[in-house]
Amino acid sequence: MSETVQDYVNELGRKARQAAGALAGATTEQKNTALRATAKALRETMPALLDANRKDVESVAGKGKNAAFIDRLVLDAGRIEAMASALEQIADLPDPVGRKLARFERPNGLVVERISVPIGVIAMVYESRPNVGADAGALCLKSGNAIILRGGSESLNSTRQIVACLAAGLKAAGLPEDAVQLVDTTDRDAVKFLLHCADYVDLVIPRGGKGLVSLVQREARVPTLLHLDGNVHTYIHSAADLAKATAVVVNAKLRRTGVCGATESLVVDRAIAGQYLPGLLDALGACEVRGEAESIAIDARIKPASDEDWDTEYLDAILSVKLVDDAAEAMTFIEAHSSHHTDAIITEDSETAAAFLRTIDSAVVMHNASTQFSDGGEFGMGAEIGIATGKMHARGPVGLEQLTIYKYLVLGDGQTRP
Amino acid sequence: MSETVQDYVNELGRKARQAAGALAGATTEQKNTALRATAKALRETMPALLDANRKDVESVAGKGKNAAFIDRLVLDAGRIEAMASALEQIADLPDPVGRKLARFERPNGLVVERISVPIGVIAMVYESRPNVGADAGALCLKSGNAIILRGGSESLNSTRQIVACLAAGLKAAGLPEDAVQLVDTTDRDAVKFLLHCADYVDLVIPRGGKGLVSLVQREARVPTLLHLDGNVHTYIHSAADLAKATAVVVNAKLRRTGVCGATESLVVDRAIAGQYLPGLLDALGACEVRGEAESIAIDARIKPASDEDWDTEYLDAILSVKLVDDAAEAMTFIEAHSSHHTDAIITEDSETAAAFLRTIDSAVVMHNASTQFSDGGEFGMGAEIGIATGKMHARGPVGLEQLTIYKYLVLGDGQTRP
Repeated sequence: MSETVQDYVNELGRKARQAAGALAGATTEQKNTALRATAKALRETMPALLDANRKDVESVAGKGKNAAFIDRLVLDAGRIEAMASALEQIADLPDPVGRKLARFERPNGLVVERISVPIGVIAMVYESRPNVGADAGALCLKSGNAIILRGGSESLNSTRQIVACLAAGLKAAGLPEDAVQLVDTTDRDAVKFLLHCADYVDLVIPRGGKGLVSLVQREARVPTLLHLDGNVHTYIHSAADLAKATAVVVNAKLRRTGVCGATESLVVDRAIAGQYLPGLLDALGACEVRGEAESIAIDARIKPASDEDWDTEYLDAILSVKLVDDAAEAMTFIEAHSSHHTDAIITEDSETAAAFLRTIDSAVVMHNASTQFSDGGEFGMGAEIGIATGKMHARGPVGLEQLTIYKYLVLGDGQTRP
Repeated sequence: MSETVQDYVNELGRKARQAAGALAGATTEQKNTALRATAKALRETMPALLDANRKDVESVAGKGKNAAFIDRLVLDAGRIEAMASALEQIADLPDPVGRKLARFERPNGLVVERISVPIGVIAMVYESRPNVGADAGALCLKSGNAIILRGGSESLNSTRQIVACLAAGLKAAGLPEDAVQLVDTTDRDAVKFLLHCADYVDLVIPRGGKGLVSLVQREARVPTLLHLDGNVHTYIHSAADLAKATAVVVNAKLRRTGVCGATESLVVDRAIAGQYLPGLLDALGACEVRGEAESIAIDARIKPASDEDWDTEYLDAILSVKLVDDAAEAMTFIEAHSSHHTDAIITEDSETAAAFLRTIDSAVVMHNASTQFSDGGEFGMGAEIGIATGKMHARGPVGLEQLTIYKYLVLGDGQTRP
């Protein structure tokens, strides 16, 4: 079977590479036409998509999936409309291809231009949220990249319908339908072969749990943009405005507990812990707070923390609390335990804030703001595929610009190099 | 042995990570002081460096190394002075760290800034040209990255001396000496362990032949910036100015045959081949030209080409010639055989030139210029570590800017997300 799957994946790659050439030359208008036609197709085929999704949901019944999993998998009219309007919003964003990023005029008359271009072929490996396929397909289409989608096997029927809508949109715009393809098999080896497909795949973007991430780190022979955990910290410095700190932490922890920008760990200066923690616990309500003995001595509602807590992304109404002497100790602790996604400081002292922003080596560092703002849309960048936590190519929100690279044009009149 | 080597490499990584933190916070002045002090140390210890280099050269005697290899390995007073002045030139370049790359002011009052920062820890794996270590060390130092150098084992004595000079420079500036470290073992497994060292190494930059590149592609568990072959094309379109075309091709092929930007393959429109090739062959003198029967029929000095020739980077005074009907066929041929480093078109027809520049998916595409201009210095970017041929992070010349990434600062006043 695996040899067949490998051939199948390679053939997807070959077709994607061919489509990528055509898509790179598409006009902005063509790409926007394709996006709007896809939105129309999603709305028009809503009954078929709902049917397909019902099959997906039925197929996991009795398989021990929890309510959060089912909630991510299930579609309804509102979610389909949200997908369609997201496509239209991406059509309204500026085209990231063809931007002039730099220009050098040389003494010999050569003009050198650095111009943004698509990356080429992107493979997106994700779990069972069908809308991720639509969003990723739309972002890649707008940025001129061919995409190969590998969604969770539980959402295969839904994803087939969504990819059919994208294909209809591409066709309506006179663009190659192979620009968006589905890995239409539940064979798990398909992911491995995508990760090995260096001849045709320029980038794999995995979105999933630790199992997927470790598979990618072990197997990838192509570049990847990793989206690791959000073990996110908020540090309450002794010079914080404590009322502000409480409001920010409650929002950072509880606005939505399941997002990667949610604060998981609070770091508090000892000098203010006694004054701050009881009021914070009142404001956090039913949220469980875990800390060490000295925190528990301040407020008995705090439960004992184990060493594991410092490295845990709860994605739930749980918060760990660590007490420190000062900003230096706080920064050392955060650098040791952060997943380098997002970390924040709350203080009215601008020098300490500046040191924190400079020192903490995370994709996003914040001063006096809720970590739940860590989002491309909130930054003003438009839609995003996720928050990259690596150090290469793109860091933080991955939107349209981050799905491009550049090439150099050298414009001469017969110059030769001495 | 290998377990010891793995521990040794990990320990280098751990120390580099620690040094990277300090280096990221260094001022521009500190970094420039370190670079200038390194230049001074290189000049002052020239006798010791020449001695060490003599040992290296003696150690390869009788080992079947060719003259080009020995030439790359050997140092003399002129080459050491060139290394020292390259360090001083890098000190004179603008600091690539701390540039404000984007700024978004949000309706809720949040200010989001995208700021350039060092990547972190870079490992450079290269062959036996000692100056590569000095250049890479200097570029990483200026861009705030810690570097681990793994040069060819034949140059180990020279590299030790050079790294000692960099350490002296760092010390003189009050910066951690571990910011530049040497893999001081000839054990070949060291490269593999660097490629696996995801905990500490953010990026591996390999510079070497096909063996090294395929090792990297197979083993890397960390991001890499590959520098593949330069199978570089120059296409002579039917609307070319043939005198200009001859001058450019002679320069592109022969100015220096051993550089990656040298043209290896000529693509010529059939309509002008009879008129163009004999004069070109006159101008190319002793350079060997290989082509198909129809080219040989035009000029009997042309030798028969095999299929392999189309994919060969000669790095020598040899040029392959392919005849085509038109620009479309030329672009298909070049896309199939180019290593996507640099490709050029010679034509007076601006529409055809624009189509070529748009379609050819190479790091550098040129119009009416010698491909030997494919160089960061010639582009006005300053010193470079090489020409990246991948599609992620950096493409084309890798200079100071390309050795940085960015992070986001989010500056608030207690904002919470609705």
